[in-house]
Amino acid sequence: MTFGDVIREHRRSFADADALVDGDLRLTWSELDTRTDRLASALTAAGVGAGDRILWLGQNSFRVYELLGAAAKIGAMVCPGYWRWAVPEMVFAIEDFDPKVIVWQQEEIGETVAKARGAVTGGEAAERTTLWLRHDGDGADSYESFLASGAAGDPGRDVDPDTALMVIYTAAISGRQCGSMLSHRNLLAMGANAAWMGDIGQEAAFLNAGPMFHIGNYQIWGMPVFVHGGKNVVVRRVDPELLLPLLVRERCTHAYLMPPTIASLVELNKEAGHDLSFLRASIAPQLWQGMATTDTSRFTRNGGGEGRVYGQTEVTGLAVTSASGGAGIGNAGRPGPFAMVRILDGEGRERPVGEAGEICVRGDLVHLGYWNRPEINAERFRHGWWHTTDLGRREADGTISFLGTTTRMLKSAAENIFPAEVENCLESHPAVREAAVIGVPNERWAQDVKAVVVLHDGAGAGAEELIEHCRERIASYKKPKTVEFLGALPRTAAGGKDYDALDERFGGGGYPGADTLGAGR
Amino acid sequence: MTFGDVIREHRRSFADADALVDGDLRLTWSELDTRTDRLASALTAAGVGAGDRILWLGQNSFRVYELLGAAAKIGAMVCPGYWRWAVPEMVFAIEDFDPKVIVWQQEEIGETVAKARGAVTGGEAAERTTLWLRHDGDGADSYESFLASGAAGDPGRDVDPDTALMVIYTAAISGRQCGSMLSHRNLLAMGANAAWMGDIGQEAAFLNAGPMFHIGNYQIWGMPVFVHGGKNVVVRRVDPELLLPLLVRERCTHAYLMPPTIASLVELNKEAGHDLSFLRASIAPQLWQGMATTDTSRFTRNGGGEGRVYGQTEVTGLAVTSASGGAGIGNAGRPGPFAMVRILDGEGRERPVGEAGEICVRGDLVHLGYWNRPEINAERFRHGWWHTTDLGRREADGTISFLGTTTRMLKSAAENIFPAEVENCLESHPAVREAAVIGVPNERWAQDVKAVVVLHDGAGAGAEELIEHCRERIASYKKPKTVEFLGALPRTAAGGKDYDALDERFGGGGYPGADTLGAGR
Repeated sequence: MTFGDVIREHRRSFADADALVDGDLRLTWSELDTRTDRLASALTAAGVGAGDRILWLGQNSFRVYELLGAAAKIGAMVCPGYWRWAVPEMVFAIEDFDPKVIVWQQEEIGETVAKARGAVTGGEAAERTTLWLRHDGDGADSYESFLASGAAGDPGRDVDPDTALMVIYTAAISGRQCGSMLSHRNLLAMGANAAWMGDIGQEAAFLNAGPMFHIGNYQIWGMPVFVHGGKNVVVRRVDPELLLPLLVRERCTHAYLMPPTIASLVELNKEAGHDLSFLRASIAPQLWQGMATTDTSRFTRNGGGEGRVYGQTEVTGLAVTSASGGAGIGNAGRPGPFAMVRILDGEGRERPVGEAGEICVRGDLVHLGYWNRPEINAERFRHGWWHTTDLGRREADGTISFLGTTTRMLKSAAENIFPAEVENCLESHPAVREAAVIGVPNERWAQDVKAVVVLHDGAGAGAEELIEHCRERIASYKKPKTVEFLGALPRTAAGGKDYDALDERFGGGGYPGADTLGAGR
Repeated sequence: MTFGDVIREHRRSFADADALVDGDLRLTWSELDTRTDRLASALTAAGVGAGDRILWLGQNSFRVYELLGAAAKIGAMVCPGYWRWAVPEMVFAIEDFDPKVIVWQQEEIGETVAKARGAVTGGEAAERTTLWLRHDGDGADSYESFLASGAAGDPGRDVDPDTALMVIYTAAISGRQCGSMLSHRNLLAMGANAAWMGDIGQEAAFLNAGPMFHIGNYQIWGMPVFVHGGKNVVVRRVDPELLLPLLVRERCTHAYLMPPTIASLVELNKEAGHDLSFLRASIAPQLWQGMATTDTSRFTRNGGGEGRVYGQTEVTGLAVTSASGGAGIGNAGRPGPFAMVRILDGEGRERPVGEAGEICVRGDLVHLGYWNRPEINAERFRHGWWHTTDLGRREADGTISFLGTTTRMLKSAAENIFPAEVENCLESHPAVREAAVIGVPNERWAQDVKAVVVLHDGAGAGAEELIEHCRERIASYKKPKTVEFLGALPRTAAGGKDYDALDERFGGGGYPGADTLGAGR
């Protein structure tokens, strides 16, 4: 089955049920099927076919799903680009992805898009071969005019579910933007698995308030809702004042909301007094203070916000979760029925239980590789397994621990040290709110371990006490040699600990894994 | 992923958890992986490889799962044969399936097996090329000796998940035994989907008290439990005296039990007084009288025993259920995320909503075809869809109604009449417990509609009243022309209405669809 087949089925099963809601726009499954047919026909007429690429340069919109549906019906791929790209990044993405169609947004980013358009290599030539469609407008060059020009009726092409549909650019691993190609099968398997984890069916309505250029918003819970014929409500901006009435109007059962937004919504609702009990799953459910349905164990096998997970875009989101067999020793859980995981050494041999190695994955969740990166793909798929470049360990109870990226692994003399392990130990100290561990170059021992620690308000603990705390609990060579105290850790855009910033501030460097990942880095 | 990969994963994720229990035998996932490795190696040494066949002639046993696991690791197929086959049926199956290995049982069926063994065409030649392994014994020719002869270690073969693993002989449709080939992907998709429907995870323990030669026992719930690393408890006989302590000892969360068995268990437990609340799903949950967990809506999306379903072996069990979007007009529900359904006419065109046609299916649940029946397969897979030979209708709300098999459709003048529709109408009469509709040949009109009716105890209704009841509710040509009254309907072995017996008793025949199914019938 393809993503297009999902729409075709839902047209028959749930013709008049809402598929997509975006502002005043409301599309039933029947309407979505009709519109994706027209769009597919228009694309075909414009010379777009199997393997061709479509780039989305805009904020969240129902049209991202719609483009995916149309592309699915003709075997093309869609990249939902990062609308915050600066001009050089956008130029890079256009030149790298080489799309036949670019759908762009005037509001907020029109100027950046115009500059990128002018700067693309080949300039006029690129202009001639690329169709630019404006999505927020209704002129002759608009997406809507283009769609309306398409013929009605199913294009009726046979599309292989093991070809690429969605491409997501990510620099999380290589430091360089690479487009991860996700197939129909990847997305549908992820959707089915997430539906099992979250007990999601056709009754679900998901507030797409997370970024649609990121796998997270599809994992929880765009794709399971789509796959089961539920309703995807799309918002362009995360504005609590607008979100609260929308949640109520659409009776969203699921929402991708970050803790600060939830806190704002809770504050607003103290006044508004809406019954939000229809909302049954969200990140950090306890923040709802009982306003949403708080018995999350009823609705998710993964313990709501307390679940343990490991994943990356390249494995279509969460390949390892505590939904499979519950939480245990490891911080990441176990693979579900669409993924296999092995902890491998550099020669492709499985590491013994308790020993660290690279987390490698096979199965229906593993992407097809990066667009236009044959050498990296060959390297990363060696021995038949997708090499995540993340370090992990199989624990005695079968759970998996994620230990950090190979690029962040430290080396002290001959010993490998994984920051996450030292951080976990530091964070078990009652005075420590959070910790980040970096390596500082040392000519003789390669690197020294340095901890950067944030204490709880009002708590006190000195460097020596924390080092001693570690010495008693983990191998001595892993304990920090020095400790720095900060009021808060620097954060990346995605909310993670910003190790690069810490390296820069505290002289970190010399990571032995930073150069081991082959071509293209 | 293959069925073998599932075992490999669970060895790592749930090494010491029970995979299979059968009497005193208890295998952890680690042990099952080791034993299937040895068995796969022994099979390889015996010349069994990809595409070769293994026939099981025995009652329920953990070894059926084990054989599937070993076969999966080398690309072979396993047919769990029907242990009640008479000698000619067994001979037919052996000659048709042409297995390289037959695993057989001495107890209860040893004599039948011996006769079949002697009668197989080619007699001695067949004997020379087939390896006969006795499963209930430990001699030199036993399954256990053979397994023990296999080398340790994973055979490490790459097996395509789209090749056949399990073959189930069924005569439900063609009247002739044909072996439906189910692939790894079929079985794993079914398992994942059933786990979603039933909220099944690693914590589940399933009592395999249904026949292992039938898809039903794997659908609910052998396969979802296996796929998620739960425990499959296998029993050879359905004996309530033995089942009750077993249920308690193994704390089975799921059980394949028929209503009479449940009634016996409930009676037995009135005395024994076991807490059975761990049992959370079974057929006909109300029969447990509150002893088992009766809030079945908590544990299944398909309304427990009240769910509506449609399926057949050839679509790996249930392709259409009310778990997808809830119950509606149709008596079968809607397809889930691994199946597509179309109601087609004889030329492969989709029938309009409300009009009857053949139920056709595509997707990951559709089998690979019948073993050794290329002509039937070509016919049944025409237009790219698997033709179920069942009649159905897409209702206005998107649900599907199963109207009966094409072979049971009646013809009166130019009109097609579907027994199920007339039966539903009759059964809506307060005096009617159940009804069966057959066609009686009529030279002028092709067939007349005859109803066979069972009234509720103490209720009274005459033929005229029932015919008038139908005339008011369905098209006049569909109403019965004659009505017969019985104390009970004859039943097939599977528990369905035995239409053949009714035809024989009341002169039924002349069904226009009986000869329309092409070669091999």
